[in-house]
Amino acid sequence: MRSTHSGSPRAHTPGELALLQQIRTRANRPSSNAVTLGIGDDCAILRLRAGEEVAVTTDLSVAGRHFCLDWHPPASIGHRTLARGLSDLAAMGARPLAAFLSLGLPASLTMRSKSLRTRSPSNLTATSSNLSWIDAFLGGLVALADTHHTPLAGGDLAESPLPLADIVLIGAVQRGKALLRSAARPGQLLYVTGSLGGSAAALSALADLAGKPRPSRSSSFKLRIPKRLQAQLAPHLFPQPRVAQGLFLVRHGLAAAAIDLSDGLSTDLTHICQESDVAAEVDASLLPIHPGATLHRALHGGEDYELLFTAPAATLIPRSIAGVPITRIGRILPIRRNRPSVTLLTPEGPQPLEPQGWQHFS
Amino acid sequence: MRSTHSGSPRAHTPGELALLQQIRTRANRPSSNAVTLGIGDDCAILRLRAGEEVAVTTDLSVAGRHFCLDWHPPASIGHRTLARGLSDLAAMGARPLAAFLSLGLPASLTMRSKSLRTRSPSNLTATSSNLSWIDAFLGGLVALADTHHTPLAGGDLAESPLPLADIVLIGAVQRGKALLRSAARPGQLLYVTGSLGGSAAALSALADLAGKPRPSRSSSFKLRIPKRLQAQLAPHLFPQPRVAQGLFLVRHGLAAAAIDLSDGLSTDLTHICQESDVAAEVDASLLPIHPGATLHRALHGGEDYELLFTAPAATLIPRSIAGVPITRIGRILPIRRNRPSVTLLTPEGPQPLEPQGWQHFS
Repeated sequence: MRSTHSGSPRAHTPGELALLQQIRTRANRPSSNAVTLGIGDDCAILRLRAGEEVAVTTDLSVAGRHFCLDWHPPASIGHRTLARGLSDLAAMGARPLAAFLSLGLPASLTMRSKSLRTRSPSNLTATSSNLSWIDAFLGGLVALADTHHTPLAGGDLAESPLPLADIVLIGAVQRGKALLRSAARPGQLLYVTGSLGGSAAALSALADLAGKPRPSRSSSFKLRIPKRLQAQLAPHLFPQPRVAQGLFLVRHGLAAAAIDLSDGLSTDLTHICQESDVAAEVDASLLPIHPGATLHRALHGGEDYELLFTAPAATLIPRSIAGVPITRIGRILPIRRNRPSVTLLTPEGPQPLEPQGWQHFS
Repeated sequence: MRSTHSGSPRAHTPGELALLQQIRTRANRPSSNAVTLGIGDDCAILRLRAGEEVAVTTDLSVAGRHFCLDWHPPASIGHRTLARGLSDLAAMGARPLAAFLSLGLPASLTMRSKSLRTRSPSNLTATSSNLSWIDAFLGGLVALADTHHTPLAGGDLAESPLPLADIVLIGAVQRGKALLRSAARPGQLLYVTGSLGGSAAALSALADLAGKPRPSRSSSFKLRIPKRLQAQLAPHLFPQPRVAQGLFLVRHGLAAAAIDLSDGLSTDLTHICQESDVAAEVDASLLPIHPGATLHRALHGGEDYELLFTAPAATLIPRSIAGVPITRIGRILPIRRNRPSVTLLTPEGPQPLEPQGWQHFS
């Protein structure tokens, strides 16, 4: 992490330097004791506990594909950037150790906007009032990081006409105990955490909101989100990665295979089937459909960031883990000729469930 | 690492998917046994040896600042992207475990160019003939990765109008033995690996070459590098990170503080002085100036990716490590009022050595 680490005065413009200092201040909070050396050297140093392995995930989020500057409040973009990485760790049953953030931003977003400070707060979302875009972005990211005791241990910054954020999460998992996509076996039952389709339903509401004319003079914060809609939009704007649930499953040896539902149940379950060489059957009547969502969104919506996991039929799975309900939704089957990879059981009979996962904004 | 790992067909365009497959094929070589789970799941899993800690570094390289599409052959950009990260590991004395690459590229660079294939090889540099830009970029990156037994264990890809590459390196270092910037003490001697100023001298030659009119019909590979110049330009185009030397220093307990010379001796030595609360003195007559480079470039040039380290005066330092010469260039002093942080000893007497490190292309 050349820049934030070295604080090299030559590699950045004065504006970028100020921003790096801001990130550094945010990042240097007291936190996990897994980080034995944070920002300020050539590398960060992280310490594992005895018997642990390192889990690494990187996720590149790009404007127009993973978020829209016009739609998403900056705090939501920061939150969602980190949530993608934390959710990958959760799906392995890994304990987050540290996050690293590389940001590419247009100059317009890295400046503290004076005009924003003098605008009426009623024109802004609650999370962004009186904050520059980057302040609010970092605020959203760091708030989620704090929830999961995950220090921001480094990162880099560069000017880029297309805003993008590359997030790296480093986690620790008990040696040989990581929940793999390839560990599903016929006879196992299929479970999900939380509810499905809420993110897609919220995104649809966000699109409706964006379609309505509204006053806007700023280049960001274009969409004002009314307070009454904030709870409804939360599954999309502020999804909660299931870190505690993944850790619980590993610590108690409950789950076999797992994946996080980022692309949608139909697509992500297909990944499990492909990696495990199995088939699966989902009972539509068992699906925990999010209030306000449809069956279609629960099956294909994506970005719910719930965990989908398998467990032997004899394993007793709690009804909820750390306050999040667990629902049995189907089972794993052997591959058979003339049987689809994933079958959906409906009142009208079994149907093939093709992967039709979430296309983000493409 | 959502995309390469999951192979999610919805998150990418067909062109990007083909490219991800290409990266995946390159990445799935047999390699280090530190990677117990590579591409294909929510995270990669890496295994440390007993008594090791994790070293993490991320470096964002952006067109126009860290490389020029018009000047640098794509294999050089790939090599330099990875070299930045490997050099950070080397400066800690860490053993590379795996690299992760996030790429943002304009669509024009991700396509295999038919016209390139039919062009006369004499119009192309040796490393890029008959290859698309991305092929050559990955070739340069993977060749250096192979040299250092560092598998590419993941990554992501997105379209970006400004080409950029974010590289993550994960390494392992003996617990508590990492070479820190903060470990320099008065009385220690100051050493560098290899020679200094070669990268800046080569960049200057590259700029001269770029200033000359030349035939070009392609949007990339704009600069043809004549064979006779390739060795001269190598310190800039293909710098060699001193991984083996950093490991040797840690394994034999020879060095105290270390940093890699990415920003230039004057700037990087100032970092050591700041982090260690010491001053330093460099003897100009001792500097191993690269053939063809000047004293100024040796002091301020940057991007040599040599190691600068300190060791107690009583420690016997080998004249060379793994074939690379080691040169004593000065010593560490206590901070004194009225003494500059870094002093340069010259035939004309001592002079303050201000940080004037490399500004890359800004």
